[in-house]
Amino acid sequence: SINGDRLWDSLMEMAKIGKTAKDGVCRLALTDLDRESRDLFIKWCKAEGCTIRIDKMGNIFARREGRNPDLPPVVMGSHLDSQPTGGKYDGVYGVLSGLEVIRALNEAKYETEAPLEVVCWTNEEGSRFAPAMVASGVFAKVFDLEYGHSRADVDGKTMGEELKRIGYLGDDEATIDAHPMGAYFEAHIEQGPILEDEGKDIGIVTDAQGQRWYEIKFTGVEAHAGPTPMKTRKDALLGAARVVDLVNRIGLDRSPLACATVGMMQIHPNSRNVIPGEVFFTVDFRHPDDAVLADMDKALRDGVDKIASEIGLKTEFEQIFYYEPVPFDKTCVDAVRNAVEIGGYSAREIVSGAGHDACYLAQVTPTAMIFIPCVDGISHNEIEEVHKHWSDAGGQVLLHAVLAKADE
Amino acid sequence: SINGDRLWDSLMEMAKIGKTAKDGVCRLALTDLDRESRDLFIKWCKAEGCTIRIDKMGNIFARREGRNPDLPPVVMGSHLDSQPTGGKYDGVYGVLSGLEVIRALNEAKYETEAPLEVVCWTNEEGSRFAPAMVASGVFAKVFDLEYGHSRADVDGKTMGEELKRIGYLGDDEATIDAHPMGAYFEAHIEQGPILEDEGKDIGIVTDAQGQRWYEIKFTGVEAHAGPTPMKTRKDALLGAARVVDLVNRIGLDRSPLACATVGMMQIHPNSRNVIPGEVFFTVDFRHPDDAVLADMDKALRDGVDKIASEIGLKTEFEQIFYYEPVPFDKTCVDAVRNAVEIGGYSAREIVSGAGHDACYLAQVTPTAMIFIPCVDGISHNEIEEVHKHWSDAGGQVLLHAVLAKADE
Ligand SMILES: NC(=O)NCCC(=O)O
Ligand SMILES: NC(=O)NCCC(=O)O
Repeated sequence: SINGDRLWDSLMEMAKIGKTAKDGVCRLALTDLDRESRDLFIKWCKAEGCTIRIDKMGNIFARREGRNPDLPPVVMGSHLDSQPTGGKYDGVYGVLSGLEVIRALNEAKYETEAPLEVVCWTNEEGSRFAPAMVASGVFAKVFDLEYGHSRADVDGKTMGEELKRIGYLGDDEATIDAHPMGAYFEAHIEQGPILEDEGKDIGIVTDAQGQRWYEIKFTGVEAHAGPTPMKTRKDALLGAARVVDLVNRIGLDRSPLACATVGMMQIHPNSRNVIPGEVFFTVDFRHPDDAVLADMDKALRDGVDKIASEIGLKTEFEQIFYYEPVPFDKTCVDAVRNAVEIGGYSAREIVSGAGHDACYLAQVTPTAMIFIPCVDGISHNEIEEVHKHWSDAGGQVLLHAVLAKADE
Repeated sequence: SINGDRLWDSLMEMAKIGKTAKDGVCRLALTDLDRESRDLFIKWCKAEGCTIRIDKMGNIFARREGRNPDLPPVVMGSHLDSQPTGGKYDGVYGVLSGLEVIRALNEAKYETEAPLEVVCWTNEEGSRFAPAMVASGVFAKVFDLEYGHSRADVDGKTMGEELKRIGYLGDDEATIDAHPMGAYFEAHIEQGPILEDEGKDIGIVTDAQGQRWYEIKFTGVEAHAGPTPMKTRKDALLGAARVVDLVNRIGLDRSPLACATVGMMQIHPNSRNVIPGEVFFTVDFRHPDDAVLADMDKALRDGVDKIASEIGLKTEFEQIFYYEPVPFDKTCVDAVRNAVEIGGYSAREIVSGAGHDACYLAQVTPTAMIFIPCVDGISHNEIEEVHKHWSDAGGQVLLHAVLAKADE
């Protein structure tokens, strides 16, 4: 049995690092606060006798040896970075419930056949550095190391530089080939409303939605808001605004499964009495069916072209991130299902709306995910909240799913 | 006669302060660069034997004594601050053509009956601190001193603090009562396309459009862009985008005289995979007919309410700036018209689309403006350009209009 109080205490302790006024967390990837959270995680793992390895993407692996050290480890984990106005559980829950599994096994002096590891992936959120899950993507050979190191934030600072600066540029090769795994389990908050609405404690995650992310830049002509006639304007913000509305319609038309969001926009020169000359913005599309996702892509491309030509804007358009819908591994999903039964929890199968490191891991190792509900389905918000009994349940299910795989 | 080459050289010299990569100017109000430009202006004025006074809003007055020091001065001027990506002439031209009038009179040893003054008004642009023309507004008793000092930039720094910091918080009362004027003339670039299109060198400005500026903040619910169903979203950026489109339609429907612009927008938390929870943006409306401006106001209020209630957003809505269309003083406009005839320039009457310090001065002293064309009507842009013969013409017209008033 895991110790739910200890897991909860660790969640609250970790949440002090980067705590915001509204009791959320701001711990952007590879900032000093991210370093602090990594240091604390490593301190806790060392106290449990784990050995630590850090790879060239800053991913941290804490290992508890098995009876058979030659077997590939069964790995648990998630991420410690957050959104600018994020919560206490997104990512952290997967890392610390993994740590709790190790603490519980140590306490019970239980030895597994295969070694166990807890991993903390770098920059899962994709907020400071786009795209999301870039370090697990490098690990799963979706991206190469150079791409990973070269991703830059809005100030032009790269992940490579920032990993070095905070002391987390490790020596290990950041790839599954150098670090084989037997299976990967990620516990996470649902980040949507379904489980809570239906009164379930656990989501058995069978698939994850596909995603496409875009960067669009419109260039028009900056001019004075007073004496510049409406008809002669090339207003880049007007174009961007129409795309925001279009993106919303693309999502709504393919509801309830489709999601379509413009989350970020930068306006230049952003002065009250100047017609905006340049606007940069992002689009995020999601759907569990790849064909629908392709259809959303086409609707966006056609719409952007039409809007730009109506207003007379120059367009730069790039799809910067794409993955197909991900089916998780049947044997791992079964392990989760069995663990739910052992614990006697109420559960349902569910498709993940968010991307997770598990989505990339699924391409290179047997993988599954365990969801717990979050209040009102809200995450990526400082008010993100979880009831403790959900947290207890998720940890317990993780323990039994992992044991099934490690001792199989 | 003014010396057009000397005026041009001074314009180019001043443009070095805050010069941008694209040969424009970034000299936001009350920054260190603004201080540098003020210091240079004062140095030049002192070299011409002028006495300097600075008031509590940082407005600088350089005085050339007249035969009758008891007469109120005839004042010329404009501003030295710029937009973030501004040009070399907007404002600067009015200040330095005033200085050139004084230089030319000194050279000719010509004594005027009334004293002459050149004024540099603080924060005309309204870009760093909203609203525009705040210091001439205080001077004209539209705003009180406390309001002027309390205006804050996006970092919360106030005009009062920043005036002190750059050493331009003067001792003089910033009001026409403490500083009476006989007349005020402002030379400025048109900032629109009309004069150049019609091949005119001079615009005789008879009126200025009315303006209304707004600040709007939408609050929705920040949530994850992946697992949050489209139907349950309260997307603040979607609301703002629809208002941008609405504002554009409000302007277009009342074209050609109406202007309607959203120039500034701040999105929170501005992260690619987060539904925006809060968006702040500005609206700028202009029209020469106050009744139409009131009708635009109503269309905006109704539209914002409708959009907010459709999406479920909380709205904060404030009109932060308003002035009625401004008719300039008939005798001063006639002085400009006569000066145009003396010089033999091609000219037409014109309504100013931009706000100017002259708009506030017109409420408290006889006022007129002189426009010169700018290339393609473009301003509030680094590529803002003026042909030298236009600059010569404007200086010459200013000289004769001012002499007519000062010797009348
Ligand atoms: N779980 C999570 O919030 N991941 C960030 C990537 C995404 O936006 O799906
Ligand atoms: N002339 C000028 O650009 N003034 C700034 C205020 C306005 O936007 O009209």
